[in-house]
Amino acid sequence: MDIRAVNALTYEEFVELFGNVVEKCPIISAAIWSNRPFKDLTDIEAHITEFIDSLSDSGKEGILRCHPDLAGRDLQSGTLTRESREEQGQAGMTALDSAEILLMHRLNSEYRERFGFPFVICARLNNKADIMRRLSERLENDCAAERELAIEEVKKICSLRLHNIVLSDIQTKL
Amino acid sequence: MDIRAVNALTYEEFVELFGNVVEKCPIISAAIWSNRPFKDLTDIEAHITEFIDSLSDSGKEGILRCHPDLAGRDLQSGTLTRESREEQGQAGMTALDSAEILLMHRLNSEYRERFGFPFVICARLNNKADIMRRLSERLENDCAAERELAIEEVKKICSLRLHNIVLSDIQTKL
Repeated sequence: MDIRAVNALTYEEFVELFGNVVEKCPIISAAIWSNRPFKDLTDIEAHITEFIDSLSDSGKEGILRCHPDLAGRDLQSGTLTRESREEQGQAGMTALDSAEILLMHRLNSEYRERFGFPFVICARLNNKADIMRRLSERLENDCAAERELAIEEVKKICSLRLHNIVLSDIQTKL
Repeated sequence: MDIRAVNALTYEEFVELFGNVVEKCPIISAAIWSNRPFKDLTDIEAHITEFIDSLSDSGKEGILRCHPDLAGRDLQSGTLTRESREEQGQAGMTALDSAEILLMHRLNSEYRERFGFPFVICARLNNKADIMRRLSERLENDCAAERELAIEEVKKICSLRLHNIVLSDIQTKL
């Protein structure tokens, strides 16, 4: 879809298509529809970043708490969103052995207990080993630093999801 | 559930239970979990109101755009949230005759076209006749006034949904 097609969408169509670019936060795409017409993909992304950055600390934690654990309950029970299922699959989270599943479960619990939100990382930019290593490392951070770091991961996930929907300016010109 | 039980919930349990007190905006309940322990039901409601009021105009429009039409497509196709289905049912939206369905469809379209968000009203506080009359009347408002009015309706819907989950302080003391 190119940017002209995006700008022609009603808000209902826009939210249907972009509603999950930030996991389970359709309010964000629904809000930035007000800013159309968009110049290009970068412009859409900038409005989303602006929305996220304008939130209070608890609002940012709210975004994080809408995310599932990696290799967690939603993956086991088949209740992940389509996007999250694909991303966790690509990162090898669907092909863990039982020892790895137990380790992820323990580290995720420890992380949630410590920070009050789930461990969020852009799974498409990390493999299984990276994810486990970063989860262990990030458990050492303080809460404020970790919140900001996790929100930057949300933005990376969002960017890749956007690129799956909208052609970039360069692609359109090719 | 009394307030002590609410304060004992993990964020996952809290979001599962309160995630739809503002329609399709789990980020809001997920955010205000940061403010626990809550004093009482009124305190939870105050934090939600504060979150909503802190949003920009487009953020508020984002909340509105997460709402379904009354007697609209989601009702016909069975894709309403449980809460919305019950509320629309109580207000008689599931028992319209074909002329009324057509009228609602026309007025909803006109409203969406004019404001860029759907008509939102607290269905549990209005009957069928009220809803149709208010929809016609509110079409005459300007966009800023209508946005604020609709957001006040969101807060009323939220308040009733909260009362369905948490015992009020008075009920607890009875």
